[in-house]
Parts: sequence; structure tokens; C-alpha cells
Amino acid sequence: MQKEHTYLPEKVRWKRKVYRIIFKSDTKMGRLFDIILLLLIVISTFIVMMESVKVYDAKLHKIFILLEIFISIVFTVEYMLRIITIRNKREYIFSFFGITDLLAIVPFYLSLFFPITKYFLILRMLRMLRIFRILNLMDFMNDGYLIVNAMRKSSRKIYIFLLFLMIFSVISGSIVFMIEGGRPGFESIPQSIYWAVVTVTTVGYGDVAPHTPLGKLFSIIMMISGYAIIATGIVTNEMRNKSGVKNTSCIRCGNSQNDSDARFCKTCGEKLPAEDLPETVSGT
Amino acid sequence: MQKEHTYLPEKVRWKRKVYRIIFKSDTKMGRLFDIILLLLIVISTFIVMMESVKVYDAKLHKIFILLEIFISIVFTVEYMLRIITIRNKREYIFSFFGITDLLAIVPFYLSLFFPITKYFLILRMLRMLRIFRILNLMDFMNDGYLIVNAMRKSSRKIYIFLLFLMIFSVISGSIVFMIEGGRPGFESIPQSIYWAVVTVTTVGYGDVAPHTPLGKLFSIIMMISGYAIIATGIVTNEMRNKSGVKNTSCIRCGNSQNDSDARFCKTCGEKLPAEDLPETVSGT
Amino acid sequence: MQKEHTYLPEKVRWKRKVYRIIFKSDTKMGRLFDIILLLLIVISTFIVMMESVKVYDAKLHKIFILLEIFISIVFTVEYMLRIITIRNKREYIFSFFGITDLLAIVPFYLSLFFPITKYFLILRMLRMLRIFRILNLMDFMNDGYLIVNAMRKSSRKIYIFLLFLMIFSVISGSIVFMIEGGRPGFESIPQSIYWAVVTVTTVGYGDVAPHTPLGKLFSIIMMISGYAIIATGIVTNEMRNKSGVKNTSCIRCGNSQNDSDARFCKTCGEKLPAEDLPETVSGT
Amino acid sequence: MQKEHTYLPEKVRWKRKVYRIIFKSDTKMGRLFDIILLLLIVISTFIVMMESVKVYDAKLHKIFILLEIFISIVFTVEYMLRIITIRNKREYIFSFFGITDLLAIVPFYLSLFFPITKYFLILRMLRMLRIFRILNLMDFMNDGYLIVNAMRKSSRKIYIFLLFLMIFSVISGSIVFMIEGGRPGFESIPQSIYWAVVTVTTVGYGDVAPHTPLGKLFSIIMMISGYAIIATGIVTNEMRNKSGVKNTSCIRCGNSQNDSDARFCKTCGEKLPAEDLPETVSGT
Repeated sequence: MQKEHTYLPEKVRWKRKVYRIIFKSDTKMGRLFDIILLLLIVISTFIVMMESVKVYDAKLHKIFILLEIFISIVFTVEYMLRIITIRNKREYIFSFFGITDLLAIVPFYLSLFFPITKYFLILRMLRMLRIFRILNLMDFMNDGYLIVNAMRKSSRKIYIFLLFLMIFSVISGSIVFMIEGGRPGFESIPQSIYWAVVTVTTVGYGDVAPHTPLGKLFSIIMMISGYAIIATGIVTNEMRNKSGVKNTSCIRCGNSQNDSDARFCKTCGEKLPAEDLPETVSGT
Repeated sequence: MQKEHTYLPEKVRWKRKVYRIIFKSDTKMGRLFDIILLLLIVISTFIVMMESVKVYDAKLHKIFILLEIFISIVFTVEYMLRIITIRNKREYIFSFFGITDLLAIVPFYLSLFFPITKYFLILRMLRMLRIFRILNLMDFMNDGYLIVNAMRKSSRKIYIFLLFLMIFSVISGSIVFMIEGGRPGFESIPQSIYWAVVTVTTVGYGDVAPHTPLGKLFSIIMMISGYAIIATGIVTNEMRNKSGVKNTSCIRCGNSQNDSDARFCKTCGEKLPAEDLPETVSGT
Repeated sequence: MQKEHTYLPEKVRWKRKVYRIIFKSDTKMGRLFDIILLLLIVISTFIVMMESVKVYDAKLHKIFILLEIFISIVFTVEYMLRIITIRNKREYIFSFFGITDLLAIVPFYLSLFFPITKYFLILRMLRMLRIFRILNLMDFMNDGYLIVNAMRKSSRKIYIFLLFLMIFSVISGSIVFMIEGGRPGFESIPQSIYWAVVTVTTVGYGDVAPHTPLGKLFSIIMMISGYAIIATGIVTNEMRNKSGVKNTSCIRCGNSQNDSDARFCKTCGEKLPAEDLPETVSGT
Repeated sequence: MQKEHTYLPEKVRWKRKVYRIIFKSDTKMGRLFDIILLLLIVISTFIVMMESVKVYDAKLHKIFILLEIFISIVFTVEYMLRIITIRNKREYIFSFFGITDLLAIVPFYLSLFFPITKYFLILRMLRMLRIFRILNLMDFMNDGYLIVNAMRKSSRKIYIFLLFLMIFSVISGSIVFMIEGGRPGFESIPQSIYWAVVTVTTVGYGDVAPHTPLGKLFSIIMMISGYAIIATGIVTNEMRNKSGVKNTSCIRCGNSQNDSDARFCKTCGEKLPAEDLPETVSGT
């Protein structure tokens, strides 16, 4: 279903060997390589995190830096080897994993000039998604794809939902701004929109909360709106009912509301075209 | 299914031309017009927001005012052109988009007399919903309708849910008022109801929180109630299962998955019993 | 489906007349009576709420008291009339509406001796549920029953869910108590359980929050647990899949996993008993 | 379906009698034993909780200690009797209930050496899960299993979801750390990740909240992400649709609603193609 890139090795012998270790995990060396890589990712992520904690950084600054340089070099070499040993280089470079592999090293070299970019090293975590391939858990991989696919399929509805939410937040933010005047937390419309989002998403930090009775009444309406959307499953149900379901149109009467698994038109009884039937049946 | 207003142009030639640019997006000019309009809406919304931020308003007050006047005039002219060039004026004026078009200019003229109403200019955002038509994304439009329809269909259940929630909040607000006496945040029943809503919707600002052990115990019950409604999907499931859809069973093949409006079985084509048909049909 | 109490009037003539006004809404007087009653409930609820606000109570104390006495007497007379005019008195008194009618007046008389109980007058709100009958919205009534029924049907699963939640909260509350020692908000296990519930239900007041790194790590686990239960719909799905669906057992092979709409056993192909088929079919 | 351990008593007569009282609840003595046990669990849990409250502990320390010793001894004797009277000892010891029975006494003896471990006595609560068996509510038991099973079945998807959530939280925590610099609550990446989790799970303590406009904008994106996942039911729907269930279509009647483990069509009784059968069956 989900077409994956099938990479091919270069024809030179040593390249084919290295390719097998780096890209595949069906040899002992290949699996060892994968596990070491995974460990390096975890260690690297951990170092970036620890480095940001002053107490630890004060003590272990040098070790952190050295480890970072070492891991970055390993990742750089690995990235170069990947490019060298693969035949369809372009496909790899612009694939999801190709980009994450690049993102894992770029911040290091950038940080030599712009120190702040160092923290982007955390993007190395994305390489962890490879764990599914490494552990040879194709089922996991498939499930992951399924989720991504599901999101892509219903993306249109998600966009609409987000647009509604945005308009709702901006308008109600403005209303509460008019109500709460310039009271703390409601100094401007953008501030009030921030509060509106905090409220309607049921996050409720509490760093900003309405002061006036009218403001509280209004926030009650907003909280209930946000809660009711979740509790009644309005959007959820709508999402399910119609997503992925292609209605089949009838040739005779033109009814376009037939379910995808219908064999006969529900309004006129005409036989429907078979293409929409599940594969197992049409394959017989 | 969803009947949309079909507007007709006036018969005078220039009116027909202008009509096509304003109402349709099947010409170059029409599409340009739409994009400019969309930009103006975004700019206008942005200005209203920025104007409310004192730092920016101090610096750019004049520019803001000028831009606002300019955009408001453009929108006014546009609104008038819409009315002039359309034949079924009344239908347009009272349609959803007709009202939002009016709401986009009224606050400006009102604000000349009552400055506070200026912020209602934010209602211009509603015009952004036209984006679907502008981008010619009819599918988006349909999905939007579907969501609105879904809400209308299950509106009765939503009302019941909201009534339950309201009664629950008022009663539990009163109970906690009796428990927490006049402690800060629980000075009166309305205040306590505000807390109850904050709690049961899982928003939890924390600006008000119970002080006594008994109050905490009671708030635990409320939090769990609010959470359980979401987590167990009680209302969600009920919403879906029964939302007016009675499946009709087929006598021949026994398929019980036919839609309530089906006249023929979708698996075998058998005529279905008529009792379950909606009234509009049986009334014929 | 949902058997409702059918009340019968006494045989004396004036009682039958009064009965019709009070219990039914199919006469002009009956409808008027219902609307006045509804108004009195709303006013009464409003008064109790306002009375708790010191500012208003200071000004309007006497009016509040007088109105309260008046409404309470009206409700008392009404309750007595209901009992007098109905034939199956016992059934009414112990029905849901009979009890709410009593609860609407008891707190008033109690408050003469124990002032605090006055606030229980808010229980009058429950009478508002009668609004469905008053407005003659039987569909609303049915939907209300459906929701209550759905809750009753899946109550066993809700109990299990609540028990799990309780055990989870108590144990994790104890763990966080061991972690956070006696820091503010975690002075004892009950306090820590309060925090655990606030966290796992995603309410998050913030009146209590972990102080130590370990406590924060632990709270991350708890927040994600609470969130994942909602986001993945584990309980929701489980609730739906099996609730209300009576599996049909096969006589030949004993398979008890057949769907409720199955006509043939899925393991051996034996015809299944027809009782479980929907009524429309078995009625033919 | 769910294979439960069937314990067998030892053959010695007194052991068989004791076994029946302890393990079964089909005798008067057995039921009494169960109820006393349940009471002791509740009391014991209650004591541990109260002991942590300084006010109560100051007053009742001795009584608490005595009761704890008493209950711990009872539980120890009971555990020993269980082992003595059962034939397949190993099976019991390593079963879920066997382990919880052990966990209920170990902390007591440990606490003699390491006082802090005393609070682990709260694990006794887990024994409460036995309540289902005690009350002879096998249906409850089954429902409990169903929920656990449902979680096990979809565990792979839950793992993926949690991994996504983790990566998302770490990366967005790092981004907000770069935005908010070292402002209070964002002193380090781990601190910022804590905030990210608090935000995306919609808990929103408010102990940490963004200070800068950019930080607030970013937190808006995060809140909406977390809320949209719940409100749109993306993961929920995916969970349900694909949770290992592939429906099998019937060749004769076209019914596509057959369960994946069905061998015969549930609407027409036709034999279904075998490819879709689960491995256990096809392996026969």
C-alpha cells in the first residue's frame, strides 16, 4: 500500500558490503551497527539536554563537548558512507530518513558559527524513528504509516477544524478583551487570544484568568464549548463517518449516497459497479 | 442535499460584468479580486489586533487609522456593488455571507460614535470562511457543510448534554459553596459555579482551588466525573449510535446494515419494507 | 421501550380537573400552569444564587426572603395538590419527579431550623428536567432516557474504569508522596492523592505542582497516562465494541462469539435462532 | 477465550477445607473470609494514608502501628495458608494475584529495616481487584479482562503514539528553551520538556507559563496540537478502524461485515475464503 523507497547498492564490491551493513539489518554486523547508532542517538540527545542544565554543564562541560564532537563526526562519516554506497543517491537524500540524517549533523557545524543553533542537535531524535526498521518490526512501521496516512486522508477536515478554532479563538479573544479592558493578562487582543486558546483547549494554565463577573460568565461559555467538542465527539464522529468512505454513484438513478460496500443502489435497486468492492472479492 | 443560494446577476451589461468579478472566481479578474479581498481581510484583522497593543499603537496610530479607513471604504463599496449587481438582492442580504459582509463594515461606522465598538471589526474574520469558495475548493465547502449539518442533526442531544452539564455545575457549585464557606474564590454561589465549571471541564485554571480537605475530596469527585465523561466516551458513543439512524434489515438476505433511507437492500437488491422510510417519502 | 409511570387521576370531579392542569399539558390552563412553574423555578434558583452574593444580599435581603417564602408556599401547595389528585399516590411519590418535587420544598422548612440548608433550595433546579415534558418534546425525553440507559447499560464498565482510576490515583499519590517528601502540597498521602487526581484527569489546577526533578519526571508519566487514555480512546473503544451487543450462541458448535445481527454461525455455518434479529424482520 | 489459572487443592483433608474457604466463595465461611479480607485491605489502606497526616499520626500513632502489625500478620498467615493448601504452588505464586498477595506483606517486613518503604503498603490496594471474584461477579471479571486485552491488542499502536508524543515533547521543549532563554521555568531543556508535556497533554498546571510573545505563540501551537488530537479523534479512530480486524467479504451475498475469524458468512451461511483466517486456524 505505502510505497517505500527501495534503495539499491552501488556495484563496486566494498560499497555493496558497506551498504549492507548500513542500510540493512539482516547481517550480524548490520544489526550491531544499528544498535550502536541507536545508542549514539540516545547519548547525543541526552548530552544536549544535560548541557542545558547549568549544574551539570559547570562540572562536565569538557566531556560534553568532546562527546558531541565525536558523535557528530561519526554521524557525518555515516551520512557520507550512505551517500557513497547507494546507487539512487537523489532518492535517499530527499527521502524522510535522508533529511533527518542530514538534520542530525547540520546543527553541529552551524553551531561553530552560531552557538544557539547547537540545541537543534535535538533533532537527532527524529532518527530514532528508524528504530522500527532497526528492530525489523515491519508491523510497527506499517502501523506508523497507517497513522500518518489516516492523518493525511482526513487532513482536509483537520484544516477546517483548525480554521474554525482559529476564527473562534480570535473573535472570542477580542470579545473578552472588550470585557476585561486592560486588566492584567488582557492588556491587548493578542494577549486575550492567548487566554482564549488556553481556555478553549481546556489547558487552563491559570497565569491569566478573568477578573470581572462578566468575564467569568464568558469564560464559562468558552470552557463548556471546548469541553463539549471533546465530550460529545462532534468532530470525532464526523471525522469517522465520512473519512475514507467513497460513496458509490448509481448509473440509473444517479443516487450518489450509496455506501462503499453496497452492491445494489439503495434508491432504485440497480446493480452498482464492482470496483469499490473489497479486493478479496473482486480478485476471485 | 445542502441547498446553496444560487445568485443571479442583474441584466444590465456592466452589472453582469462586475457581478462576475465579485461573485465568481472563474475569470482572471475574479480570482485577482478574491485574492485582494482575502489579503485585505487578513491585514484588517491584523491591524485591529496590533492597535490594541499599546507599544505598537503609540508608534503607528496614524497609519493604523488610515489603513482602517481605507479598507472599510473598500469593503463598503464592495458591499454596495454586490447588492447592486445581484438580481435576488434579498436572498443575498439575509444569507450567511451577506450578513458577514455587512458585519465587516458596520462596526467601523459605529465606532465613529462609540469607539469601543471598533474591536468588533474583528468580525471581519468571518469573511475568511469565504476562502473555501475563493480557492474553488468545493470539497472543503462540502466538508464544512457536513460538520455544520452533523451538529444540527445531533443538536437535540447536545442541548440535553448542555442542560445536564448546567444543572450539574449549578448544584455542585452550591454544594462546594456550602463546604468552602466564604473562603477566597468561594465567596458566593456564582463564584463557586465558576469554579465548578473550571473543574468539570478539566480546564483547571487554578485561580480558585479548594482549601479544606472536604472541598478537595469533593473536587476529586468532580474532576473524575468530568474526566470519565471524556475517557469513557459515554456521550460520544450515545451520540453516534442513535443519531437518528435506524438501520433497515433485508428480508431476503438478512443484511441489517441498510441505511434508514434505503429503499432497496444494498447487498442483494431486494425491495425493503417501507415503514422505516422517512416521512417525506412515505407521504408521497 | 422505556416504561414510564402512567399516573391516573382520582375519580372525584374537581380532582380530575386539577389533575389535568397539573399533570398534563394538553389544555390551555395546563400549559399556562407549566410555564408559570418553570418561571418560578428559574426565579427561585436565581434568588438563592444572588442571596449568596453579599453585595446584592445587603441591598435586597427582604425581597429575597419574601419571594422565597412565596415560591416555597406555592411549591408546597402544588406538591400537596399533586398527591391529592393522583390515584396511585405511592408510585408518584417515589418516582424520580416525585422526589425532586419534594426536594424542592424540604430545604425551605429545614432552613427555618438550620439556616445553612437553605442553599439546598438549589436542588429545585432538578425540577427543570421536567421542561422536556412541559414543552411536549417527547423526542427530547426519549433522548434523555437513551443517554441514561446507555450509562446504565455500560455502568459495569464505568465502575471498573473508576476502580482502576481510584487504585491508580492512590498508588501514584503514595509514590509521589515518597518522592516529594513533605514539600508544600505533598504534606500527606491524601494531599498527594488529590494532586494525582488533578494530574491524571488533566485538570491541572497548579495549586500543587512537583518541586523535585524526580517528581516532575513522575508527573510527566502521569500526565501522559491520563492524556493517552483520552487520546487513544482505549476505554471509549472498548466501551463501544461490546456494550449493548448481545452475542448469539450457536446451538451446534457452541460458538458464543457471533454478532448480534448474524443469521448463521460464523464457525460452523449453522442457522442461528431468530430472536435476536431486529423487530422489523421477525414481525413479518 | 481468556484462560484463567485453575487452582487445585492439596489432597490432605484439612488443607482441602481451608483451601475452599480461602480460594472459593461458594460456602458461608468462604464468603465471610472474603468479606473480612476486603475490610482488612480497606482498613489497612486507610491507616497508611492517615499515618502520613501529621495531625492524626501525632494522636493515634500507637494504634496505627498496632493495627498495621496485626493486619500484616493476618495477611502473612493467609499468604502462607494459600501456598500450603494449593497443589500447583508455582502457578499461584507467579500469577497476578499471587504476586499482589506477596506485595501486600513484603513492605511491612522491609519497613522494619527501611522505614520509608512502609508506604509501599499502599500496594495492598491491588488486592482489591479481587473484589470481582469475591462478589462472584464473573461478568465484571470478564469485562476487566476485555479492557486489559483491548490494551494488549492495540499495545503496538499505543507504543507508537507514546514514542511520537515523546519525540514531539522533547523537540518542542528544546525549541521553547531556545525561545524563552533562561526565564523562570525554562532554565534548562529538561525543565522545558516538563512544560511541553504539561501543555500538550492539556494539563496546564500554570506553575510554568511562557513569558515572551513568541513563547506564547509557540505554546498556542502546542495547545492546539494537543487539543486537536483529542477533539478530532485522529488516534482514536485509527485505533478502532485497524486494530487487527480485517473484515472478510462473502462471495455469495457480498456481505463485507464478517469478522476476521469467521469461517462462514453471517448473513447467508456461505463458506468464506480461508486466506483471511488467523494463523492458529490455518495452521491446523
